[in-house]
Amino acid sequence: MSLHYLDNSATTPVSAPVAQKALDLMTSRFGNPSSLHTLGFDAEQEMQNARKTIAGFLSVDPETITFTSGGTEANNLALLGAAESQKRRGKHILTTQIEHPSVLNTCKQLEKLGFSVQYLAPTKGGTISPDDVLEAIQEDTILISIMMVNNETGALFPWDTVASKIKKQYPQILLHSDMVQAFGKMPISLSKIPLDLLSCSGHKIGAPKGVGALYCKKGVTLRPPFAFGGGQEKGLRSGTENVPAIAAFGMAVSTLPSFAEQESRYQALQKQLLEDLKSFENVSLHLPGSHVPYISHFSLCGVKSETLVHFLASQNVFVSGGSACAKGKQSHVLTAMNLPKREIDASLRVSFSPHNTKEDIKALIEALEKADKTLVHT
Amino acid sequence: MSLHYLDNSATTPVSAPVAQKALDLMTSRFGNPSSLHTLGFDAEQEMQNARKTIAGFLSVDPETITFTSGGTEANNLALLGAAESQKRRGKHILTTQIEHPSVLNTCKQLEKLGFSVQYLAPTKGGTISPDDVLEAIQEDTILISIMMVNNETGALFPWDTVASKIKKQYPQILLHSDMVQAFGKMPISLSKIPLDLLSCSGHKIGAPKGVGALYCKKGVTLRPPFAFGGGQEKGLRSGTENVPAIAAFGMAVSTLPSFAEQESRYQALQKQLLEDLKSFENVSLHLPGSHVPYISHFSLCGVKSETLVHFLASQNVFVSGGSACAKGKQSHVLTAMNLPKREIDASLRVSFSPHNTKEDIKALIEALEKADKTLVHT
Repeated sequence: MSLHYLDNSATTPVSAPVAQKALDLMTSRFGNPSSLHTLGFDAEQEMQNARKTIAGFLSVDPETITFTSGGTEANNLALLGAAESQKRRGKHILTTQIEHPSVLNTCKQLEKLGFSVQYLAPTKGGTISPDDVLEAIQEDTILISIMMVNNETGALFPWDTVASKIKKQYPQILLHSDMVQAFGKMPISLSKIPLDLLSCSGHKIGAPKGVGALYCKKGVTLRPPFAFGGGQEKGLRSGTENVPAIAAFGMAVSTLPSFAEQESRYQALQKQLLEDLKSFENVSLHLPGSHVPYISHFSLCGVKSETLVHFLASQNVFVSGGSACAKGKQSHVLTAMNLPKREIDASLRVSFSPHNTKEDIKALIEALEKADKTLVHT
Repeated sequence: MSLHYLDNSATTPVSAPVAQKALDLMTSRFGNPSSLHTLGFDAEQEMQNARKTIAGFLSVDPETITFTSGGTEANNLALLGAAESQKRRGKHILTTQIEHPSVLNTCKQLEKLGFSVQYLAPTKGGTISPDDVLEAIQEDTILISIMMVNNETGALFPWDTVASKIKKQYPQILLHSDMVQAFGKMPISLSKIPLDLLSCSGHKIGAPKGVGALYCKKGVTLRPPFAFGGGQEKGLRSGTENVPAIAAFGMAVSTLPSFAEQESRYQALQKQLLEDLKSFENVSLHLPGSHVPYISHFSLCGVKSETLVHFLASQNVFVSGGSACAKGKQSHVLTAMNLPKREIDASLRVSFSPHNTKEDIKALIEALEKADKTLVHT
């Protein structure tokens, strides 16, 4: 029985060649990039190649890319570092209620440190209104952090048009976006979108766990650094670099299918999924007004998410109930969207990678039909 | 030409079976431990197995082990977290001048945050005197952080006798040790050594880069956590866990040769090295009064470390000049030991793993002889 993995927003499998790259840098070319000898130099080169690949992908200078241990660390470094370095200018930070916990909980810490954080509510459809953002800007706003793609609903925030608008009026406000669910799945050119800070993660797009990256525009200071020590990553992130994961990250990015190819695949799969879901009487779709085609969110009302996730796994179909991070807790995103509790409790997220096919949708629908007949509805 | 890798205190190669474990968890069993389905559960299990292995190795409860992205992060979390949580009791912290930068630079940050940090000087021989530590304790001392094995000279601090002595007189002082260069190479049983905090790293003992661990005694609070987010690792260290590296860490630890076997190997190798070095006229040994057999430090006076490291690498012999982290900067450890500048400039570190043999020493000596004849002495 083949595995139908539709939980790619939680994590993704690493392809054989990408894993082989990591393996090579663990076993044969295993140097510490800080070592002065050739093994160290070789590791350093691998890291710089990955940095170039990721920078090229975002149309930025390689020097602006800092490797981190993942998306959470990138978000922590961006927010704590930007807030502290900007605090003389003001204390107001704008974000939203539907951010990832690594942004929300870092913002809560910033509140403890004396910053004033405003959490914008989503529209009923689950998106963040650009007008709400513009209206909420205050004289002492120093930082705006809004995710590009919501990890639970796939809601899309139009940074491509909003960033320039904000920067034109308020050039001094730092703009950060958690792009963990966007990077690698849609074109993002920072030569067109004037963001100051952007976080991304490797393991959401076919790289191993344990690596992420933070783009930080030249001239923007982040302090304090995320870790104190040997001064690696220009002092922003001390600690021996995770070379195998970093090099594999570079390779995963450079071997992604084109965005056009990805988009047409995701659109076709989402179209089929939504079409097939119509046959269920008790289904509620939660498609935000503006959304990406690779995340679909719905409830099969009457069946608890957790029960359904377990049942589907028994059928070799893997999806999640909300985000992986929530791990059973009620989703703060769906709560912010004011969804009825019975829909929140029964929510399911289906998320695609370039490896998914119509067979996966077929298997999911069959398993859902089986669940609908078998499981006790509450 | 085979590779003679004698720079194991910088980093180590990952053995094929350990790397295979990481690969398996990247490609086949790639779940996110927070996912509720079986792939997530499987990943969680792998992580718990590794936690048990590492805890067993230290004779502690698995719950006291927090996985981090490496030794630097473990040291940061231990020091920042312990200092902040203890600050009502006092502001005095004791450490030494010869700690790793991840301790020293974190201490400098603690000074900025209002703590008073005292950096004990080493003896001329490079060790830290237990009497100096005891004498330096003040009424408001809250934390003592001293590495067990110095990463440059191999100097050994006798925590096995000192910890009980301190705890008897000052039970409230938290004791931390950076054990990055000790863990896995010598028996450390925390049932006998009453430390509160202990840091270790995977890639120094055959695990991949990107993973470390912090032992934190039950009842000891660390705040703030190292990263804010999804609350992984009991909230101490948010972010998707690096399962492949963690599982490989567990396997690397469980497949280490016995300490007796390691010790006899290291002693034999160090004995041969020291014996063979006697034939060089211009060599200065820097063996601390109490030291481990797997790190040897000496100078081949008149030849700059960097030149020598490069030359040796061209002969397929890999050593370092001081620590990897210093990367060309003058060693703070040797400076604290008041070594003459010409010895500091010419310092070399040779560090063993269980894979080294007498052939490696032979190759090193031959290469050093060649260097001594070939290179221009300053």
